[in-house]
Amino acid sequence: MQTELIFGLSAGILTSASTIPQVIKTIKEKDVEHVSPLMFIILLCGNGLWVYYGLLKSDLPITITNSFSVLMDLTMLFLKFRYKK
Amino acid sequence: MQTELIFGLSAGILTSASTIPQVIKTIKEKDVEHVSPLMFIILLCGNGLWVYYGLLKSDLPITITNSFSVLMDLTMLFLKFRYKK
Repeated sequence: MQTELIFGLSAGILTSASTIPQVIKTIKEKDVEHVSPLMFIILLCGNGLWVYYGLLKSDLPITITNSFSVLMDLTMLFLKFRYKK
Repeated sequence: MQTELIFGLSAGILTSASTIPQVIKTIKEKDVEHVSPLMFIILLCGNGLWVYYGLLKSDLPITITNSFSVLMDLTMLFLKFRYKK
């Protein structure tokens, strides 16, 4: 069980970490032209379902990772509507 | 068990689907300036670990979804080096 948890959490940290640069770049540059709301709404639904799936299976890595992803998706959607020209 | 599988696969389809537009756009426009190899290498490692995690837990939705993501990451890395100016 312990090894699984370590692999799951490491996977989650890597895949979550890869979304952070885009959020930081968008906040700094306030450039949301390239941000597709439809993509982030699809991602939000997908990541939300993954959180629910993780809860159903009481799987910590899936639940934590995808809760973080939901937060990133919501941030990107907020930024899109905040800085839309 | 069945409901979990349906939620997991639906979550996987949504999160995978959201990566397809970027790959298609990159193939069509051959514009890889915005593509960060470091990000896709991190994503590749993360998604690879998720596949291994899914195999460890014999979790079909995680294994299938992240195998597809690994394929997308490899495609983006190939395109980056193929069309790099």
